[in-house]
Amino acid sequence: MAKAETSPSRGMRDLLPDEVSLRSKMTDEILATYHRRGFTKIETPAVENLDRLLGSGGGDNEKLVFKILKRGEKFEDASLDGGVLADLGLRFDLTVPLARYYANNFSKLPPVLRSIQIGPVWRAERPQKGRYRQFVQCDIDIIGEPSVIAELELISTSLEAATSLGVEGLTLRFNDRNVLDILLLAAEVPLLVAPSVLVTLDKLDKIGFSGVSTELNSLLGDSSSVSRLLNLFEPLASYSQVNPDLLGRLGVSDKVIGDLMAIESLAKLDDSVQFRFDPTVIRGMGYYTGPIFELGVPSFGFSVGAGGRYDEMMSRFGRPSPACGFSLGFERLVLYLESRGSQRYSREPIAHIRCANPSDYTKAKNLADALANKGIVCMIEGSTRKLDAVLKTLRSQYSQTNGSHCEYEILVVVDGANTEVFSIGGTIPESLEVAD
Amino acid sequence: MAKAETSPSRGMRDLLPDEVSLRSKMTDEILATYHRRGFTKIETPAVENLDRLLGSGGGDNEKLVFKILKRGEKFEDASLDGGVLADLGLRFDLTVPLARYYANNFSKLPPVLRSIQIGPVWRAERPQKGRYRQFVQCDIDIIGEPSVIAELELISTSLEAATSLGVEGLTLRFNDRNVLDILLLAAEVPLLVAPSVLVTLDKLDKIGFSGVSTELNSLLGDSSSVSRLLNLFEPLASYSQVNPDLLGRLGVSDKVIGDLMAIESLAKLDDSVQFRFDPTVIRGMGYYTGPIFELGVPSFGFSVGAGGRYDEMMSRFGRPSPACGFSLGFERLVLYLESRGSQRYSREPIAHIRCANPSDYTKAKNLADALANKGIVCMIEGSTRKLDAVLKTLRSQYSQTNGSHCEYEILVVVDGANTEVFSIGGTIPESLEVAD
Repeated sequence: MAKAETSPSRGMRDLLPDEVSLRSKMTDEILATYHRRGFTKIETPAVENLDRLLGSGGGDNEKLVFKILKRGEKFEDASLDGGVLADLGLRFDLTVPLARYYANNFSKLPPVLRSIQIGPVWRAERPQKGRYRQFVQCDIDIIGEPSVIAELELISTSLEAATSLGVEGLTLRFNDRNVLDILLLAAEVPLLVAPSVLVTLDKLDKIGFSGVSTELNSLLGDSSSVSRLLNLFEPLASYSQVNPDLLGRLGVSDKVIGDLMAIESLAKLDDSVQFRFDPTVIRGMGYYTGPIFELGVPSFGFSVGAGGRYDEMMSRFGRPSPACGFSLGFERLVLYLESRGSQRYSREPIAHIRCANPSDYTKAKNLADALANKGIVCMIEGSTRKLDAVLKTLRSQYSQTNGSHCEYEILVVVDGANTEVFSIGGTIPESLEVAD
Repeated sequence: MAKAETSPSRGMRDLLPDEVSLRSKMTDEILATYHRRGFTKIETPAVENLDRLLGSGGGDNEKLVFKILKRGEKFEDASLDGGVLADLGLRFDLTVPLARYYANNFSKLPPVLRSIQIGPVWRAERPQKGRYRQFVQCDIDIIGEPSVIAELELISTSLEAATSLGVEGLTLRFNDRNVLDILLLAAEVPLLVAPSVLVTLDKLDKIGFSGVSTELNSLLGDSSSVSRLLNLFEPLASYSQVNPDLLGRLGVSDKVIGDLMAIESLAKLDDSVQFRFDPTVIRGMGYYTGPIFELGVPSFGFSVGAGGRYDEMMSRFGRPSPACGFSLGFERLVLYLESRGSQRYSREPIAHIRCANPSDYTKAKNLADALANKGIVCMIEGSTRKLDAVLKTLRSQYSQTNGSHCEYEILVVVDGANTEVFSIGGTIPESLEVAD
């Protein structure tokens, strides 16, 4: 028989026990912070009607939707007519489903919803190292709060969550879509190409001012507009603090300037985090309408979170409401912690209870219950493999993980009236009695 | 503007904060039991190659796979050629992906894998009350253990998990595929129709012996074979205990009888659970090879768990290994707990901190941190809505939930130098200081 192909589907992945363990502990830690700050978990289905996913302001992500075939007669009809073959799709983010959810459940939700969503999303991206077609997003959103208090709550809660995971050297770069609008207007960028101009400006940190300048020239075909635009950006980008005078002179409203300064003032609460106003923070999504932010760890080189205000999106589903969200880059945080060796968590002691015969099971189980009461994880195992071989494997595994995976590990043989204890690794406390 | 359609896709559902809260607490409880018993969580992607899902022994579930359209050029080619349009599908259970996972990660897994999987699966079933197209499955499996110790560990762990949730009146009905094979052989049922005969016998509890008899007649077209079969079943079904003599006379092997008796002996460990040998336990899936079991709550009328041994499935992916699993009916358990009003869990006290002005945020946040240290959930809120209206809504919500949703709830107004506390509900401890 040919070796069966057992890899996950292209771009997807299996998670090993240690990987899941790290993720579960991260999730628990993040959720504890979110709960303490008054957020509650909600859930939407993984599958949404395709017409809601497409044209949702999701930018390029809309091109990456996994589409689900119609079923039964509907599929046959569509096939024969050359009609649309798919009617559903896998969600590509958690924000579009949240907008639908809020409208659908409005009457059962509090006037200001503080939601948590942690769950998988899917994007049919070209697979590449560290990027998968299924990955976890971790969002908090406040819906129904028009003031910048929402931003302050979301940013400070997300910073607390990231800090609780042990992330160091966090930098929050922030901006406001209104600032970008004003700069584009002042540079006389035509509305029609404004979205593409923003996408290009978003590459500033990757290709620099000269690279951006070249791209903008080909977009705008008008070098005077390009130089106007860059001349407006450069002085702003040279400050790392909000400069109210400069922004005011550009025509940014007092409200927007005040909100930016309120975000900046969060620095007073936690001096381990850098706050930096940065007009080159753009955010790809079309749906943002106010403050936008990106959370990074410069030494790590990646963004580990992002968010912003998206006041207009909720009206798509007939329930207009101010809305703002912050998404932690869960998968990036996993990579960060793995890169620091944080995947090794210490675990409870382990006892393997070897049951010579099924008729010994009741005795073995009573022993297991007694050990479990002392906080020991107990597994009852059969005796098909030879004792020597089992001990050898277990001891080799214990030493491979440097003993760090648990305090100590034992094997207890239960055979009729006899009970015998073998050490696998670690220091067994003298107080541990494994009596007959 | 017409009212936007905001319902989830057909057969899917949104989960409200209280619903998610119940599910999270259930998951935590179940996982704690599983971990204590030495099981570890693994994860496979939601999406699998379609050819692995189809022909996987998944019975009728294979007809219910949500199929995902090919992407890009592959789709265009398939469209033009009239070829196969889909290459991926959403998993319909967690067992088929587990078999692939085990083969794929064999070298990185312990010799005997004790896995936990809790996650969504999808089936394009005709929507009906209480049945959804996306639902959570909750499985433990032991791979690599040939003896009945695996069954004993899985059953006793699952019973502990169900009991920890507060489920009462549990009954475990068990059988063995070998017993069924012998009965079918003795009744001279042709191999080709054996699977359909089993599906029909599976309906015994719904349509009774006479209903089954009618169906079998039309299946076998040979009433002598039907009556032979039913004559073999009836005496067995009239016992609720394993009858080794009767089984032995039928030709069931000593090994199989011994395993059934070992399962029955679990009754000694927990007298709150009924154990009943029942030859009419069939289990729809084609992949079972040994003991099979169903966990029910007769007063509730539903099965809340099931499982069995499926030693042959692992060889499909080129890594033959004994395997056995137990799946708790997570969604049924949710219904059971909701029907008993168990969705009301008491929660931490809540403080709403009303921030008159964004410039008060730092003060409000310091207050929130101090209250959070006392175990109070704190939300900082804006002051766009009038204080009276906010208090009215909060008080009405508090009383609607009978105060059971938290011990007490307060609203604190932070306005410049002033701090004022309002009670929303519950008894505020005298010791609580909300100082300026």
